[in-house]
Amino acid sequence: MGNINIKNLNVKNIAIKARQASKKIASIASGTKNVILLRVANLIEQKKEEIINQNKLDLKNARELLSENKISQSIFNRLLLTEEKIFAITAGIKNVASLPDPVNKILWGMELDDGLELYRVSSPIGVIGVIFESRPDVIPQIASLAIKSSNVVILKGGKEAENTNRVLFELINTVLIDSGLYPENTINLIYERDDVNTMLKMDTEIDLIIPRGSNKLVKFIKQNTSIPVLGHSDGVCHIYFDEFINLEKALSILIDSKCSYPSACNSVETLLVHKTTAREYLPKIVEKLFENNVEIFGCKRSQSIVPSIYAMKDDNWNKEYSELKISLKIVENIESAIEHINTYGSGHTDTIVTESNENALLFMNYIDSAGVYSNASTRFADGFRYGFGAEVGISTNKIHVRGPVGLEGLVTYKYKLFGNGHISSEFSGKSGKVFKHKLLAVD
Amino acid sequence: MGNINIKNLNVKNIAIKARQASKKIASIASGTKNVILLRVANLIEQKKEEIINQNKLDLKNARELLSENKISQSIFNRLLLTEEKIFAITAGIKNVASLPDPVNKILWGMELDDGLELYRVSSPIGVIGVIFESRPDVIPQIASLAIKSSNVVILKGGKEAENTNRVLFELINTVLIDSGLYPENTINLIYERDDVNTMLKMDTEIDLIIPRGSNKLVKFIKQNTSIPVLGHSDGVCHIYFDEFINLEKALSILIDSKCSYPSACNSVETLLVHKTTAREYLPKIVEKLFENNVEIFGCKRSQSIVPSIYAMKDDNWNKEYSELKISLKIVENIESAIEHINTYGSGHTDTIVTESNENALLFMNYIDSAGVYSNASTRFADGFRYGFGAEVGISTNKIHVRGPVGLEGLVTYKYKLFGNGHISSEFSGKSGKVFKHKLLAVD
Repeated sequence: MGNINIKNLNVKNIAIKARQASKKIASIASGTKNVILLRVANLIEQKKEEIINQNKLDLKNARELLSENKISQSIFNRLLLTEEKIFAITAGIKNVASLPDPVNKILWGMELDDGLELYRVSSPIGVIGVIFESRPDVIPQIASLAIKSSNVVILKGGKEAENTNRVLFELINTVLIDSGLYPENTINLIYERDDVNTMLKMDTEIDLIIPRGSNKLVKFIKQNTSIPVLGHSDGVCHIYFDEFINLEKALSILIDSKCSYPSACNSVETLLVHKTTAREYLPKIVEKLFENNVEIFGCKRSQSIVPSIYAMKDDNWNKEYSELKISLKIVENIESAIEHINTYGSGHTDTIVTESNENALLFMNYIDSAGVYSNASTRFADGFRYGFGAEVGISTNKIHVRGPVGLEGLVTYKYKLFGNGHISSEFSGKSGKVFKHKLLAVD
Repeated sequence: MGNINIKNLNVKNIAIKARQASKKIASIASGTKNVILLRVANLIEQKKEEIINQNKLDLKNARELLSENKISQSIFNRLLLTEEKIFAITAGIKNVASLPDPVNKILWGMELDDGLELYRVSSPIGVIGVIFESRPDVIPQIASLAIKSSNVVILKGGKEAENTNRVLFELINTVLIDSGLYPENTINLIYERDDVNTMLKMDTEIDLIIPRGSNKLVKFIKQNTSIPVLGHSDGVCHIYFDEFINLEKALSILIDSKCSYPSACNSVETLLVHKTTAREYLPKIVEKLFENNVEIFGCKRSQSIVPSIYAMKDDNWNKEYSELKISLKIVENIESAIEHINTYGSGHTDTIVTESNENALLFMNYIDSAGVYSNASTRFADGFRYGFGAEVGISTNKIHVRGPVGLEGLVTYKYKLFGNGHISSEFSGKSGKVFKHKLLAVD
């Protein structure tokens, strides 16, 4: 018990020092940050043997846990760092260095009065807690995004990657400390599961929590903290085949959305088919899915056309399979498709396949999801594919950021008001001055 | 007990129907929304006698509660609706009608490939819960902002304004229903305190909670919901008199910030004075504050220069007085001023008074608050003064919106991707297509 208290105290101390550090690093110049990032990339390159050796230790322990069924094969697989993966890590860091600085951008400006100018300027969020599972490449990825956006991070990695996480963390921290520009606790690594619970309570020290892992992890975190959480728990994406389709195009989008990476959150889970299209094409659609080894769970109406598919049980329409399975439903019209998606979807990404421009717009206006597509695969929902350069994660939140999140999701803004002795009471009353409220051109 | 269950069920039903309504009103055209707003303003104007009569009922009940000390004088005062106040309400609604539509604006666009175009488009948040105290003018204000931004609202007003709230709510709802365009439950009014607790648990139906009221109310809500909360609990604003000041300008800013409306959250609570300035000017600063009936609670060092002020006890530097009182501290230099504000401030609004441009920029870069000002009164922190046209409230959140919140705070965005059969696997592998990632000019 004493031991647990000491541990909690440590995480509390880390969070308090992290908050202090955040105030100090908010205004480090873009050029400096980029030099630091390149140094981090170089040091990781230089020390790749050491990293691989530490990773071997983790793999050895993990192999035992795997043989005892204490971890899954997929966790084991994601643990492995090869020389190629380390190359990808350093390339990623260099890419972050090459992106524009998200901080200190003038977003908006207004002249309130002669000599009284108001600017909305992007600024770091402050302290960000990132909770992730076994993949150790999250550390350099998130650390580099944090350095670029002038945020402090507290990283909680998986126990099974402890040695790899520690060496990566220490290499990055060495560069920061040796620069003489960054205070200690700019990046922080914590290890224990108990520490997460302490972290979730530090709502005056931590501004944002980003969980990266299973739905279970994300849900647990959302329910146990008053700190804003950026992430998505479910990814129940839909494709709707409208009344007016080009079958070849439709099937190509369907197979890409379902089969190119079934465990990704942006893979499709439910196919809705307009009754006219179903009557005409359902056997061909099912045949194509079968060819691609997809199991189909269909509504009664679809089963009556194609009896070879499984029955959808218990109206389980919000199921996220994350494997080669799909739900299938025939709908009366586009309105019922929209209603189905808004009811059972998770607000991630949904696509209409249609040759009708009008229907595409109707679908895209009324579906309330982060991504609403026409005639494109759901798999495009990704920060790199959107052109953000780097991805923090995907958000199904309604506020702050929605959809794939790039560096922009790691900044907020502040209002800077430049005056020359201006006071508010001059502007009150009938004979008071009137605000100019003239928009300033900003770039 | 049975009764309470039925009531809770009702709020649950309201929230579920509100969610459904939110999907239906997301795309109502700008012109239509503005016509509806003007109709609401006209109907309130027509029915002003009825409103005043209902208000008299509330005032009568409140007078009794006041005499029994069950409500405060300030709650009683805010309850009163006069003909002038009703005029101000309708003028406010007409003003909201005149503002640009915040929904369906293209915020950003990128060409991903030939024929594959991605747009970030502003969209309503969905269902917003607003919890406020006695002021009945909140209902038309928030309802008009909700109509303009195509959001559904659930309003919980103070019990003491029940009759006034009900008549205002019914007038607005009549216009919405009579139009034939808005489903029931587009605006909703709930009455009971118990209902708030139910509301705070409806995290799949409600997207955002906006509490407008005491610090206590805001804190209670933040701690009892996993729904994002937009608001501010404290407003501990600072003024720092730098080493290089023009005394006259400094005093004018100080008195405006402290005395023009002491109970406002953007009034100053703490004055920090550079030691050189203190040595030169402190007696004059104190004299000016005394002239304006401000009580001063100073650090030991300031007391030694001006013994007539009170002593600051228990280092109570995060005190929000909300009346004619101020904390006073002498600081060594600008760095200690920044550290003090970042430690004890509430991230609302802080001002430096200085003739040094360099110090102004240093202060504005390193203070981590929603508003960082140079040579201007803290009282400018207000949506109308910032030129937003309408104010939802002021946010000290770090994410989503920060500072005064206009209509922009009531919208989010979605990504619309227009393709023509595009699939992601074409872009993978060494021989895959390369994304164009060409920014599209948007207005």
